[in-house]
Parts: sequence; C-alpha cells; structure tokens
Amino acid sequence: MALRVLVLGAAAGGGFPQWNSNNEASRRARAGDPAARPCTQSSLAVSADGRNWVLLNASPDLRQQINDNPQLHPKEGVRHSPIVSVVLTNGDVDHVSGLLTLRESHPLAVYGTGRVLSVLDGNSIFNVLNPAFVDRRRITLDQAFEPAAKDGRPSGVVIEPFSVPGKVALYLEDAGAGANFGTVEEDTIGLGLAERGGTAYCYYIPGCAAIPPGLGERLEGAPLVMFDGTLWRDDEMVVQQAGVKTGRRMGHLSMAGSEGTIAAFAALGIGRKVFLHINNTNPVLLADSPERAEAEAAGWEIGYDGMEIVL
Amino acid sequence: MALRVLVLGAAAGGGFPQWNSNNEASRRARAGDPAARPCTQSSLAVSADGRNWVLLNASPDLRQQINDNPQLHPKEGVRHSPIVSVVLTNGDVDHVSGLLTLRESHPLAVYGTGRVLSVLDGNSIFNVLNPAFVDRRRITLDQAFEPAAKDGRPSGVVIEPFSVPGKVALYLEDAGAGANFGTVEEDTIGLGLAERGGTAYCYYIPGCAAIPPGLGERLEGAPLVMFDGTLWRDDEMVVQQAGVKTGRRMGHLSMAGSEGTIAAFAALGIGRKVFLHINNTNPVLLADSPERAEAEAAGWEIGYDGMEIVL
Repeated sequence: MALRVLVLGAAAGGGFPQWNSNNEASRRARAGDPAARPCTQSSLAVSADGRNWVLLNASPDLRQQINDNPQLHPKEGVRHSPIVSVVLTNGDVDHVSGLLTLRESHPLAVYGTGRVLSVLDGNSIFNVLNPAFVDRRRITLDQAFEPAAKDGRPSGVVIEPFSVPGKVALYLEDAGAGANFGTVEEDTIGLGLAERGGTAYCYYIPGCAAIPPGLGERLEGAPLVMFDGTLWRDDEMVVQQAGVKTGRRMGHLSMAGSEGTIAAFAALGIGRKVFLHINNTNPVLLADSPERAEAEAAGWEIGYDGMEIVL
Repeated sequence: MALRVLVLGAAAGGGFPQWNSNNEASRRARAGDPAARPCTQSSLAVSADGRNWVLLNASPDLRQQINDNPQLHPKEGVRHSPIVSVVLTNGDVDHVSGLLTLRESHPLAVYGTGRVLSVLDGNSIFNVLNPAFVDRRRITLDQAFEPAAKDGRPSGVVIEPFSVPGKVALYLEDAGAGANFGTVEEDTIGLGLAERGGTAYCYYIPGCAAIPPGLGERLEGAPLVMFDGTLWRDDEMVVQQAGVKTGRRMGHLSMAGSEGTIAAFAALGIGRKVFLHINNTNPVLLADSPERAEAEAAGWEIGYDGMEIVL
C-alpha cells in the first residue's frame, strides 16, 4: 500500500502556453525551449493501489492528459478505464469541463459539494454523462469520505474536504452580491488525501486566497502539500498586460513577498511543498528564471505534467 | 487569394484513441504504431488570406489543436489569435465544448443557428465567453454570410449553411418527441465554403444521415467535399461491442455497402473527396486495413490532423 499522486496538469486555467498569449514565455514554450516546458490545465490523479485512480478535478485537457499518462490507459476488455471516480474542488471551467470527455456511457462516480453539483445540474450539457452510468454524489465539508466506483468498489483513498478562503468562479459571480461576489464557503475547497488503513497523507489545495491560522495548523508537519501557485506576485497579470485583475481579485494568494505563500509556509515544517495551478504569466514556469531559483531555494518544487509522487 | 482548409481534428466524438477504448486500433495508436495515427476530435479551420482563420466547430481538443498547428498560434502583441470567429454546425458536445477554451476576454464572434445558440444560452457555463468580448450571431439556413471578427473585419470566407438529414444531439433528445427524437431542420447542417470574389469553393458536412437527390445535385462537380466518415458499416459499434446503437440511430450514413456514402458519391464527379469525423471503431483509421485500401481505391482520402488543402 502507498498513496500515489500523479500530476496530470500543473498549469492554471488557459494552460501553458495559453491559446492567445504571445508573451515571451508562451513563445518559448511553443518553440520547444526545454526551459519552458508546456503544461496542461489543473488536474491530479490519486491512487492507493496503483491500478484504480481517482481524478481530482477534470480539466479541459483531460483527453490529452489520459493519452499522455499510461497509468490512465485502459487495461482490459473492450472498454475500460483505471479512472473510477472524480472529485471536484470547485465549479471553475478549468476544473469541471473535462467531465465532458468522460462520456460514452462509462460507469463513474462524480463527487462534489452541493454548490459544485448545482453547477452541473444547471448546465444540461453535462447530461452527456448519462445518469444511468454516472452517479453524482454530494460531499459535505469536514466529513471524510472514500470515493468509490459506480458499482461501490472502494478506492482505498480517504478524502477530507475543507473550506479555504477563495472566490466563486468568475462566470458564477453575482453582481448583486456585494464585495464577495456571492462567494460561499463551499466555493473553494482543499482536500486532505490519505490511504485507508495506512499512514501516508498529503494535502491538495489548488486555489487559496489566504492562509488563516487554522489552515496553517492543519498543514503543519504534513509530508506533502500541493498548493495554489497561480501567480508569483499579485499584480503580475496587470503588469504583463495579460489581464486587469490582481491575484487577490481572483482569489489567489501569490508566491512572493512578505505576505506571500512562500513566506507563510516557511515555518510549517512541511516535508515536500509543490506548487500547482501555475498561471502562464508566472515566471517560475521558466526553469532558468530567478523566480524559479528563489522558490526552489525556499524548498518548493514546481509541479509539472506527469510528476508522480509516491508516499 | 485562395481558400485554405486546415483539418484540426479528423476523428468523431471521443477521438482516436478514445479514453476508455481498449480495442486493437486504440491500443495500436497508444503504442505509437505509425499505421494507427492518433486523431483529435472534429474541427476544421478555413481561411481566405492565410492569416485570419474561421473555426468550423470547436472540439474539446481545441487547445491541443491550436498548439499543434502553427497557423493558429498568436503572432503579434501580448495577446493575439489568428482565430477571428467560430461557426458551429450543431450542438454536439464534440462541436461546442471547445468554446470553453476560447476564454480569457478575447474578442470573437460565434455563429450558429437559433437551435445551436439556444444550447449555448441554456448552459451558463458558456458565459465564460464574456459577452462583452464575444458576440453570438445567429445564422439562417440557406442564407450565405461572411463571418467577421468581433470588430466587423470581414474574413473573406463566404459560408452557406444548409440543412442535411441528421439527428439532434443525443443529450438533447426529447423522449416524448417520437421517432425523430425531437430533431428539427437546424440540428444538422452542412456548409458551403467559398472565397469572396474568387472561384474556389468546397463543402463541409461532418454529420449526415442520408443523401437525398437535392443534396447530391448540390455537391455534384464540386472541387472538394469533406464528408461524414463516422462509420464503415452501420452495425460496426454493435459488432465491436463499443456501443448499442447503429449508425442510422446516431444520424450517420456509413461508408460501405450499396447504400453507403462511397456508392452514393461514385457518380457525382467530385474533385477531391475527404472523409472526416471518423469514429475510433472505423477501420479506415488504420493505414494497413483493407477498408482503407477500398476507400482510397474509390477515390476517397482519409482526413488526418494537420491536413491542409489549398483551393
């Protein structure tokens, strides 16, 4: 037994390179520069037995991600997949639209909070996941659960969902809802991942706007934390003319600075710290950037597609 | 001036290999067999000037397709795309979900029939295409139009949409609607493509259930027809245990047999005949199959990702 974590996509929404970005980093990635390795969009797979995998978020690049990772290739019969279930951490397009790839009347179980499931229920296009084959199962914050296959076979992975500071998905923002845009507790969640009956565990928090004391206490001493690496600095997209919003406005803590993630994690005594959900404007994507060197010097690893960690 | 057609994805929904298919063809494709070349899902790009491109359908693989085709890479400034507009031929998931890739507040114009636009309107997830940046423009059957960019710049490509026999997308089927499942005239359309002020033209018909006399007359003598190549034979998916539906039930004419597409096109005197929207069960995807040889002997080409035709 062990807990295996496979990074399917290390980039934030848009991926790297992003379809309409002509910045230097995206140009280098398109040119095949080995220091600018392309990344697909945010998704992870986790397994307790190395055979059955639970997807954590389903990115728009899921078909490519399955093709690129032999762990997720069909193994037997005419129709098969090692993917037995999907757990969604929020209703972002880059976390749910990959569900549209998992069609063809294949048995699956999809787990999400009531808030996330209401996004699926409100968009009839997700009915391509034939309800006769695909269960939608509601999870409750702070209640650990073990994702199971459609037929009830347990995955061996125990997941504890908890709320983290964040923001509702942009396309769900409610103009009348005031300063928090209609954000509720379930909009952004982190996941604790553990093997049933074992000691291995880790945390996956792909979006997070702040680290309040309770969250720091939860993560302290963990063997592995995979954390929101969207931006290096808060005004990065504005400075690069890639957008008008700051990280804070998008619900993402930045890596650098005295109030950034690197500083906040410094005293937490975490075994391995991996940045995921990295935006294409973030210079840590470039292996030869000073920011990459600074993050690595602080003990962080920069996630990449195909990265597999065995705990 | 010329009319350029670029095949972004030659496969039908699911692509080749399909995520959960373990058939011999998909296994060969995953193993890198050069006779089993992978294909992404159904989409085409067309251009009159080689600089500005109109997408015909937006497949779930669109991000990968843009990465794979330099014609669609950004060329200037910080944010740019040669893609100026998108024309949708139906509301199938494999034809519309790629729109979710074209976000990031980028100016675009999306064209579809009232029926297709109602699918977008009915699914709030498509609001990630910020209406301030992305126009949705309604087209009318049998009325030629020239897709333009969001700012009105004409594309130079003139498109004539016309109804062909077909079927409403599976997830839109109306259980109470009787034998045609609620199918209406706008559900499946073909497109005539021409350069404005020039003589080059062709037809793109990615889904078609039959070739009535009027359709045959329309296509007769055309320099190029790209046509529904979903199945080799009507019961192929059933025989291969890949599904329970026949081609007819899914609204697709098959290639082979006395009532198939190859026979129906034999006397039409078409310059180039290219099969697209090819299902992963179709043996023509395998370069060494007898079916591929038979199709080619009958004057057909089997489309592939990256195929570019200049008329």
